[in-house]
Amino acid sequence: MDEGSRPLDTLNHARGKNVMLDLKNGVSYIGKLKAFDIHINIVLEDAEERKDGTVTRKLGTVFVRGDTITIISPA
Amino acid sequence: MDEGSRPLDTLNHARGKNVMLDLKNGVSYIGKLKAFDIHINIVLEDAEERKDGTVTRKLGTVFVRGDTITIISPA
Amino acid sequence: MDEGSRPLDTLNHARGKNVMLDLKNGVSYIGKLKAFDIHINIVLEDAEERKDGTVTRKLGTVFVRGDTITIISPA
Amino acid sequence: MDEGSRPLDTLNHARGKNVMLDLKNGVSYIGKLKAFDIHINIVLEDAEERKDGTVTRKLGTVFVRGDTITIISPA
Amino acid sequence: MDEGSRPLDTLNHARGKNVMLDLKNGVSYIGKLKAFDIHINIVLEDAEERKDGTVTRKLGTVFVRGDTITIISPA
Amino acid sequence: MDEGSRPLDTLNHARGKNVMLDLKNGVSYIGKLKAFDIHINIVLEDAEERKDGTVTRKLGTVFVRGDTITIISPA
Amino acid sequence: MDEGSRPLDTLNHARGKNVMLDLKNGVSYIGKLKAFDIHINIVLEDAEERKDGTVTRKLGTVFVRGDTITIISPA
Repeated sequence: MDEGSRPLDTLNHARGKNVMLDLKNGVSYIGKLKAFDIHINIVLEDAEERKDGTVTRKLGTVFVRGDTITIISPA
Repeated sequence: MDEGSRPLDTLNHARGKNVMLDLKNGVSYIGKLKAFDIHINIVLEDAEERKDGTVTRKLGTVFVRGDTITIISPA
Repeated sequence: MDEGSRPLDTLNHARGKNVMLDLKNGVSYIGKLKAFDIHINIVLEDAEERKDGTVTRKLGTVFVRGDTITIISPA
Repeated sequence: MDEGSRPLDTLNHARGKNVMLDLKNGVSYIGKLKAFDIHINIVLEDAEERKDGTVTRKLGTVFVRGDTITIISPA
Repeated sequence: MDEGSRPLDTLNHARGKNVMLDLKNGVSYIGKLKAFDIHINIVLEDAEERKDGTVTRKLGTVFVRGDTITIISPA
Repeated sequence: MDEGSRPLDTLNHARGKNVMLDLKNGVSYIGKLKAFDIHINIVLEDAEERKDGTVTRKLGTVFVRGDTITIISPA
Repeated sequence: MDEGSRPLDTLNHARGKNVMLDLKNGVSYIGKLKAFDIHINIVLEDAEERKDGTVTRKLGTVFVRGDTITIISPA
């Protein structure tokens, strides 16, 4: 398996960039990816919460528990 | 990985500060972060429960089981 | 991490005291905390069950499986 | 931790006695506690199934998978 | 703990006998218990599927994933 | 425990044969069993998807995540 | 067990090819398979999201958490 072929490498390349997390409950969080671990627990900075495309809260730093996440994509 | 780049470090920096926990069932708990572990089990002090933005209970110290939590953010 | 900073320490301090357990299904159990383990399995003594604030059953000793619990708070 | 302070000790003391198991799906099983393990898998003898307080089935010996159980109490 | 006091011993004694498996989705499978493992994955032979007491399918050999099972009882 | 008495042995005997997988979401996949692992992750070849008995998609090779499966039976 | 008989081998053969991921919430993601791990966490490139067969978002690179996936098939 070559470097870059593991999913966590993709998260590592996204550090410091804006990402969007979609949760199982339909809520999304957009912010700068500060930290993650093997459980896919994520910390975002300058984060905001969105429901149905509308910003519902400004959160600053937010810790998102990995098992609630469905996808992570560039924002 | 530099110091501060792990999600639990972010929780560690929040010790003694007010945080808000959102649960999978839509309830939130706001209080001072006293303790946490790798399962994201959390203990808050001087905690209150909120539903739809309204305070529903004053709880004092509360232990929140990690697997019910979606996000943790500054309060 | 200093003594008292782990969530299970908080449960340990609550031994022999009355606590309230809220479950994922919306039911609560109130009783004296007799025992717990790392899975947050809990045994209460002199326990009663409450739904929507009303006592629905007197249970005596009750074993509550940890993965059904959302929060534990003083009662 | 003294003898008797672990949740499984409480189950051990209940061997051979009648207990009631409440399941996540709202069904209850009442019978003599024959066996259990660390997953809280349970075997009852002379068991019956109850829904809303009514006996719906006589089951004899029944194996109940631990992860479906919410509480175990004396019957 | 004496021989026979563990839940898997009860399943072992049921090998070759007819058992009924109730699943979390409300469907039941009745057949001869051929095999099981520690995850409570089960293989039945000469199995049939029942919903609300009515036979809905004849399945021959069926593998049932353990985490979908609520109870196992003699059929 | 004799050879053949473990659930995974039953899956092993089914390699290369047509099987039906029922999923927790009510969808079924029918195809030739190519591969499986201890998590019951399954690969089918020449697979088709069925809902309520009707073929909804032809999929060729399909990887089915084990934790979504309820039963596996001959097709 | 011969080479190629394990489910992850099938994923490995699909690297660099277009695949479709179906999620438990009914949403699908189609893109080029870049990376996966033993938890079936997946990274797709040039990915798009589809609901009920309609493209709802262009996502570029997307990380999909394994426990939300039901099936993976060629696209």
